[in-house]
Amino acid sequence: MEYETPQFFRVMRYAREADRDVVDMVSGSPDWEPPGSLREGLAEYAHADASAFQYAPSVGLRALREEIAARRGVDREQLIITNGAGEANHLAMSVGFERFPGSEILLVDPTYPYYAGRASMLGATARYVPAGEGGVPDPATVREHVSAETSVVVINTPNNPLGVTYDRETVADIAGIAAEHDALLVSDEVYDHFDYSGRFASALSVETPNRVVTNSFSKSLAITGWRVGYAVFPDREGPTGELFERARTRHMLTNVSGSRPAQAAVLHALEETGPRYYEEVRARLRDRIETFTGALEGMGATYTTPQGGFYVMARVPDVGGSFESVERLIDAVGVAGMPGEAFGESRADWIRFALVSPRVGEAAARLRSL
Amino acid sequence: MEYETPQFFRVMRYAREADRDVVDMVSGSPDWEPPGSLREGLAEYAHADASAFQYAPSVGLRALREEIAARRGVDREQLIITNGAGEANHLAMSVGFERFPGSEILLVDPTYPYYAGRASMLGATARYVPAGEGGVPDPATVREHVSAETSVVVINTPNNPLGVTYDRETVADIAGIAAEHDALLVSDEVYDHFDYSGRFASALSVETPNRVVTNSFSKSLAITGWRVGYAVFPDREGPTGELFERARTRHMLTNVSGSRPAQAAVLHALEETGPRYYEEVRARLRDRIETFTGALEGMGATYTTPQGGFYVMARVPDVGGSFESVERLIDAVGVAGMPGEAFGESRADWIRFALVSPRVGEAAARLRSL
Repeated sequence: MEYETPQFFRVMRYAREADRDVVDMVSGSPDWEPPGSLREGLAEYAHADASAFQYAPSVGLRALREEIAARRGVDREQLIITNGAGEANHLAMSVGFERFPGSEILLVDPTYPYYAGRASMLGATARYVPAGEGGVPDPATVREHVSAETSVVVINTPNNPLGVTYDRETVADIAGIAAEHDALLVSDEVYDHFDYSGRFASALSVETPNRVVTNSFSKSLAITGWRVGYAVFPDREGPTGELFERARTRHMLTNVSGSRPAQAAVLHALEETGPRYYEEVRARLRDRIETFTGALEGMGATYTTPQGGFYVMARVPDVGGSFESVERLIDAVGVAGMPGEAFGESRADWIRFALVSPRVGEAAARLRSL
Repeated sequence: MEYETPQFFRVMRYAREADRDVVDMVSGSPDWEPPGSLREGLAEYAHADASAFQYAPSVGLRALREEIAARRGVDREQLIITNGAGEANHLAMSVGFERFPGSEILLVDPTYPYYAGRASMLGATARYVPAGEGGVPDPATVREHVSAETSVVVINTPNNPLGVTYDRETVADIAGIAAEHDALLVSDEVYDHFDYSGRFASALSVETPNRVVTNSFSKSLAITGWRVGYAVFPDREGPTGELFERARTRHMLTNVSGSRPAQAAVLHALEETGPRYYEEVRARLRDRIETFTGALEGMGATYTTPQGGFYVMARVPDVGGSFESVERLIDAVGVAGMPGEAFGESRADWIRFALVSPRVGEAAARLRSL
């Protein structure tokens, strides 16, 4: 099994111990402020009646589920509040693999490494659909890789690491292919607030009982350590209604419930935060994207321009995408990224740079000096 | 599978909808204040630098692991901070069942129902050792029920629901039996701060590589909804060192990490809370125990007097221990407990009363009026 975190650690340790100043563009932790209302919500909760410190419903605070349900246009009864998107994806993949026949979980290469780790933990075989040149897998290619053995198909849009946003037609096509093959589509949409293309389409827009959508507030509210996420399951009265029941049971027996202080503060932040907060974050990221890709262009690198999310992948001339390549880049110019080989075979000579540092401009200048 | 929570819900809904005032003694959520330093810790964290809101180490905040390690006399490297004792028990039972041969998990009857639910989720057969008249299973009886099929043995001391505290010799005997049969002992010690007998002995006091100890701050700091617990694994250099690695991987792929606001506040509370806080809570509970068992004595009931924890089990004359019995008791006198049948066969005609209500005296008077 391979996990992003230990791999992150390897690179981050190398960067920390380097004999020079290093701009850290390795992990996906926002470097900007959460909304003020989030801090307010937590501070208020600290003074709540002690009864508010006791067990929340296992599926999450009712008011938080209602708030999310209203925003996503789903029924509160379809939602489980999870310990971040991590648990949401774990639940969705687990119950999908139990419920639908087949021994394989289909992932897109390059992929966020946790999906592969989870497939392995479930005893599933991970099978990879190449993302192709454009970064969005062609439904025809998905069809070539899917079979009676496919139990679950996982997509991530906007995408880590490629920065592409799947359009509605692609999402609908992939959902249709999953349904045809009696498989579950799991759509991880944790970067949905970071769409610059205007064409992001949630898998919730597709009518199908073979779909679970996962998400979290880790990125949108800049709180990766707080662990508040959710999964939207199919209609409980429909043909796949048991997915919710299975996930609720697994969630209860694994975690009992998510942590209540974080849930209470997120609820307050959702109630009080207007679109301007998200717009400002996107504007900041657009500036960083422009600065960073400008430098890559100037040095003749091949690179992705994010349509969504906050990662740029680049093939830096004469550097490569292995761990050793990344370490050489740290030594040479003091810029740390994540090796492409950590995400699969198809971008093994690329490096992923996370634009979550106020020093993106400095990193760009350093790369130009290569 | 049977879980305490849905069963709780059934009784709690009945109590809520009853046509009379009801004293709720169903669930195990403390009704007293957490230490002031816990609230302080959370309020301070709300104003921390935004970087403190990002990913904590997957195994938990280092300072919190160090604080716990120092208190428990173990190495920080043996600890994983979990999403409550719920996740700690899930991890311990999962990795034990993977690592040790056999298809069975041994539980003590009566048992906390989540253990049975977890065994079922793992595909294990739950086998039950009767607790016997005294409430602590005789090691000779444990030996009769253990076999080559035993993979994991779970004990809970101080005990929910029986209120007994296992002495050191019993814990050592059961640990020895587990080791002899190539099985893992999981000792859930979540009520360790509620020992009135002075003889509580953690399984950490036994030298064995076949043991995981689980715990949480849910009860000791009165925050069942915050979900901060931990598991202490065997020495990582020893023969069962892989248990830690397996649990770390499972924890990472399931939850990534526990919620950081709750961890930060618990750390502050541990640093600032002296023994007086715990003594006062115990004194309050001792008063409640005296009041409540006094009433049971007065009405000729058979009952347990807690040596630890905060549950009293009683066989109330002419009432019984089924869900219907509990509902009748709610209707008759407005006192709600948990049916003994929810905990297994051996106390199926008893009722468990949780002494976590300021109205224990009132409940006692109502029972006397039966």
